Amino acid sequence: MKINFSKYHGTGNDFIIIDNLEGEILLQQNQIAFLCKRHFGIGSDGLMLVEKSKKSDVKMTYYNSDGTPAQMCGNGIRCFAKHVYDNGMISGKNFSVETPAGEKHIEIQTDESEKAFLISVNMGKAIFEPKEIPVVYEQEKAMDIPFKTPWGEVVISAVSMGNPHAVIEVADVDSYPYREIGPFIEKLEFYPEGTNVNFAQIIDRKNVKALTWERGSGLTLACGTGSCAVAVVLHKKGLVDKDVVISIPGGRLKVQIDDTITMTGPAVHVFDGQVQIPKEG
Amino acid sequence: MKINFSKYHGTGNDFIIIDNLEGEILLQQNQIAFLCKRHFGIGSDGLMLVEKSKKSDVKMTYYNSDGTPAQMCGNGIRCFAKHVYDNGMISGKNFSVETPAGEKHIEIQTDESEKAFLISVNMGKAIFEPKEIPVVYEQEKAMDIPFKTPWGEVVISAVSMGNPHAVIEVADVDSYPYREIGPFIEKLEFYPEGTNVNFAQIIDRKNVKALTWERGSGLTLACGTGSCAVAVVLHKKGLVDKDVVISIPGGRLKVQIDDTITMTGPAVHVFDGQVQIPKEG
Repeated sequence: MKINFSKYHGTGNDFIIIDNLEGEILLQQNQIAFLCKRHFGIGSDGLMLVEKSKKSDVKMTYYNSDGTPAQMCGNGIRCFAKHVYDNGMISGKNFSVETPAGEKHIEIQTDESEKAFLISVNMGKAIFEPKEIPVVYEQEKAMDIPFKTPWGEVVISAVSMGNPHAVIEVADVDSYPYREIGPFIEKLEFYPEGTNVNFAQIIDRKNVKALTWERGSGLTLACGTGSCAVAVVLHKKGLVDKDVVISIPGGRLKVQIDDTITMTGPAVHVFDGQVQIPKEG
Repeated sequence: MKINFSKYHGTGNDFIIIDNLEGEILLQQNQIAFLCKRHFGIGSDGLMLVEKSKKSDVKMTYYNSDGTPAQMCGNGIRCFAKHVYDNGMISGKNFSVETPAGEKHIEIQTDESEKAFLISVNMGKAIFEPKEIPVVYEQEKAMDIPFKTPWGEVVISAVSMGNPHAVIEVADVDSYPYREIGPFIEKLEFYPEGTNVNFAQIIDRKNVKALTWERGSGLTLACGTGSCAVAVVLHKKGLVDKDVVISIPGGRLKVQIDDTITMTGPAVHVFDGQVQIPKEG
C-alpha cells in the first residue's frame, strides 16, 4: 500500500499527517511504529490522521510514535490545523477539531502568502484538585510542596492540563541538574501515575524560560501542556501576567490565561512524501 | 527552491539522495545541515548527490549530516547504487562510481521485482602500516597492543579502511563496557587523529557479532568500514574465514577478503518526497 503524507513540526516536535477523509486508510500499530521510526521509517514524534467528524469541523486521530493512540497533543494539533487550513479542508480561520480529549477550538493567523503561520488552540482548564491530577495530597491544592532529593530540596507545584505536571521554579534552567531531578520527581509516590516535570526560570512578568522532562520519554524540545502548566502555576502565584511567552528549546509558545487556557505557537510544513507501507509492518 | 529527493537506509544508516545529473542543484552547507536535521528537516545521517562522471559510470558526492563533505560512506554507496540502478540511471548490474576516495566498483543482486536487493561494493585494501593509519607505533604492524584503561586491560589491533580503526575482541558484546571504553580508545594519543572503535565477538569462523563506536559520533547502528576492519583483522589473526558475516545492530553485512575487500549488504528505499529548501538554510 502506497500512501501520501506530509511532514510538519511545531517548535521541534515533529509529526506525520495523513489525509483520511475518505476513511480508506487503516493503519495497524506496527505500521504506525514503522512510519515513526527514525533511521528505518519516515521518523517522527507522532502521526495524525485527518478524518471526517460528525460533530466538529474535522477530526484528529493521534498516535504516539510507538503506534499507540493518544488523546491529544498540543504541538501536534497546531500542525494538524495548519495542514487542514492550508489544504482547504476546512473553511475559515476559526474552526473546531474533534479529539478523544474533547472538541478543541482553533484560531489561525496567516502570513503574507495566506498560509497558516501562528495557530491558537484552546487547551481547556487547568486542574488543581489533587485527586484529579492525580497526586496523593489531603489539602485543596498541592502548591509549593517541598521534597528532599539527593540534589537538595526541591519545591514543586502540581497541576493537570489533562496530564499530570510538576512545576519547579529555578534560578537558571541551563545550570540546574534537570537530568537528575526530572526522572526523580517523575517517579515520586506523590504522583501515583507519574508526572511531567517542568523547570521554569522567570525572566520577567511576561517571559519565562522553561524545560520539560516528559513522563516516559525524558527531555523534549517542546511540551505544549508543560508550557501551559508553567504559565498557569506562575500566574496563580502572582509571579507572571495573564499573557506569558514561554521559551523552550524548540522555540517559543504564547500562553494566555483566562477561564480556559489558550496556547499560540508556530507550525511548519517541511515536506510531502509518498511511502510504501510494508504489509507486516 | 523546491527539490525532489528519495530516502534510503542501509542497515539503519539513513540517507537523502538527490538527482543532480543536470548539475542544476547547488546546496550550501547550512542547507544540507537543515535537510539532515531530525525533528526540523527531513532527518538523516548523510546526503548524496547523483552527478555525472567523466571517468566512471556515475559520480557520488557525499555530505555528512552537518553539511561538510566526506570522501566515502560504505552504507551510503549501497543506497546510492540501488537508487541509480532502480531508476535506470545506469545500465547493467556492474558499474563504477566516482568518489573522492577513488573509483568504487558495484555489483547488484536483484529481487523478484528486478529491484536492487543486495549490493556489493569494493572497499579497497586494508592498510596496516602504522604511519598510514595513523598510529604512533615503531613496528611494522600494530596488532594485539595492550592498553591499560580504568575498566581493565584492553588489547587492540589497528587498521585503516581509508579511516582509522581499532578492533577489540570481546567475549560478549552486549555485556562489554563499550560506552566507556569506546570514547576512551577513540581519544588515545596512540591514534593522533582519533579512531573508530570496533568491539568484535566471534561466533564461529564465518560469523562475528560487532558494534562500532564511531569517531566523533558515538555508537552507530552500522559502520561499513568498521565491519570490514573487524573481518580483516580477525582473518589476519587466523580466527575467521575469508568470507565472514558481521552482525551489527542495524542488520548484517557480508565481508569477503581477497586482494581487496568486498562488502555486501542490503539497501532499502523508504520514501520519496518534495521539500522546500529555505534560502538561508
